[in-house]
Amino acid sequence: MEEELERRAALVTATIEKLLPVMHPRGLYEASRHLVDSGGKRLRPSMLLLAAEAAGGEALALAPAAVSIELVHNFTLIHDDIMDNADVRRGRPAVHKIWGQSGAILAGDTLYSKAFQVLGMTAASPERILGAMNMLSRTCTAICEGQWLDMEFESKDRVTENEYMEMIEKKTGVLYGASAGMGGLLAGASPEVVRALDEFGRLTGMGFQLQDDVIDLLTPEEVSGKRQGGDLIEGKKTLIMIHAFANDVVVPVFSKKDASAEEIFRSISILEGSGSIEYARSRAEEMVVQGKRALDVLPPSPAKETLLELADYMIRRRY
Amino acid sequence: MEEELERRAALVTATIEKLLPVMHPRGLYEASRHLVDSGGKRLRPSMLLLAAEAAGGEALALAPAAVSIELVHNFTLIHDDIMDNADVRRGRPAVHKIWGQSGAILAGDTLYSKAFQVLGMTAASPERILGAMNMLSRTCTAICEGQWLDMEFESKDRVTENEYMEMIEKKTGVLYGASAGMGGLLAGASPEVVRALDEFGRLTGMGFQLQDDVIDLLTPEEVSGKRQGGDLIEGKKTLIMIHAFANDVVVPVFSKKDASAEEIFRSISILEGSGSIEYARSRAEEMVVQGKRALDVLPPSPAKETLLELADYMIRRRY
Repeated sequence: MEEELERRAALVTATIEKLLPVMHPRGLYEASRHLVDSGGKRLRPSMLLLAAEAAGGEALALAPAAVSIELVHNFTLIHDDIMDNADVRRGRPAVHKIWGQSGAILAGDTLYSKAFQVLGMTAASPERILGAMNMLSRTCTAICEGQWLDMEFESKDRVTENEYMEMIEKKTGVLYGASAGMGGLLAGASPEVVRALDEFGRLTGMGFQLQDDVIDLLTPEEVSGKRQGGDLIEGKKTLIMIHAFANDVVVPVFSKKDASAEEIFRSISILEGSGSIEYARSRAEEMVVQGKRALDVLPPSPAKETLLELADYMIRRRY
Repeated sequence: MEEELERRAALVTATIEKLLPVMHPRGLYEASRHLVDSGGKRLRPSMLLLAAEAAGGEALALAPAAVSIELVHNFTLIHDDIMDNADVRRGRPAVHKIWGQSGAILAGDTLYSKAFQVLGMTAASPERILGAMNMLSRTCTAICEGQWLDMEFESKDRVTENEYMEMIEKKTGVLYGASAGMGGLLAGASPEVVRALDEFGRLTGMGFQLQDDVIDLLTPEEVSGKRQGGDLIEGKKTLIMIHAFANDVVVPVFSKKDASAEEIFRSISILEGSGSIEYARSRAEEMVVQGKRALDVLPPSPAKETLLELADYMIRRRY
């Protein structure tokens, strides 16, 4: 699977090089390319290409559509990093740390419109491209709603499991859903198959996000590049913490930014002991099982196999 | 003409009410609607409707497309106000002053994707809608470039006339161009007519911006709602100042934020005496004459008449 993903990631990177050249005014395009060029796993665009292939389409023709998904993803990261005042992303300084807040707002805005421009260059019929654009614009609105909910959670005392699931569905799930759905749509799949692909992406994307919360607690900084337990001391109301609250588990370092490494590890042990981490992991597992089931409508194919493996990887990964 | 514009502005406002309801999460949609609901003249969407009619189309069917232009315009204002740290817009607090910087970034992002969503709801063939979406995404990229150039000017000692004209073409001209061009395209006009409409909008839009610079100097605060000479003491390198620099005119209050009202008036008199204001005005006039000439390809019609009057209004207005 790794090899299959890498081949598609390389196609996406080469297409970005072609469709998003650094041109006048250079500063703007350098700022826009900074995060895009810093890698990342390109899971979303790869999912689009795989979904298209699984639906009988040709990946190469849809490379611009895959790029559009990657640009939207990067645009949201750039703006989120401003909002969270994050210093580092993918091991490099965040865009706003180099080009300032105004530069980063504009770099994100540029990727946003470039995503639609690039999608318009996809080799497909006007009907299909328009369908994909409608899916993408709906998705971008939902992502904004998800980020808004996430910010609202910060000022709330308690968040319910339903509220949390809605937030991660919008913030993370829908873009994976659009990736798989747009792949199918552009490949000419039936509305039923497009819906199934969308569901596959959305549910596995939610599993991906839940696994992110687990990684925060269980993966050492040397591996993840992020401080272990960082979400915890920031006071993030993840599903893990929602489970802990509901079971009256006391987590001393929650929202305690100056906690020592030892204190953090002790709190992580508490969350392991209370079954809170296991709870989030089992919900992630459920999401992925349900997502994979949605693919039953597709005939067997190597691309479908890779999609199923990708779904497992999303909750098996350690960083 | 005023009446013709008001009728179309009312259609745009009613369509916004329908297509951008305040829904969950309410805070996000309230923030997104704040500036949109504070009025403005709705010149851009009205231009879209008039261009469509002048090309033989039906305005009512294209109301969503007109709204998409207005949403893009408002999105750029919200983000610009963050970048400029502006307190007030259209007599109300700027979005970031009420919902904070993060809220305003997200409100702008939401209007951005809503613009594409709404454009997708226009009653026209997929080919035409797709053409309009491609025009809109190209335009949004150009607007980002224009805003970037404008910000770059702040750290430059001198700006040339060509650089300035490129900046206002991108920051202001292209959205008027897209308004008229999309109206024609959605009404089924030929590529030649679409190009002519785009040129009409772009050139008159540049005239509009040059007139904005003149208004800054000549319209009293009671009328404009902005401090007279505000651009001047902020050190904005407008075409007026570029003319003054080129002619070795000394303008004492340029970039002097604490200048007194009397000092400001004296500097404005200097710019009147040097012909710098008249120079910008004559360039604006040229732009509008050239823009109107582009409409020669269209047969006579009431809508065409109104477009020609609108072009004159753009440089005749005092605020």
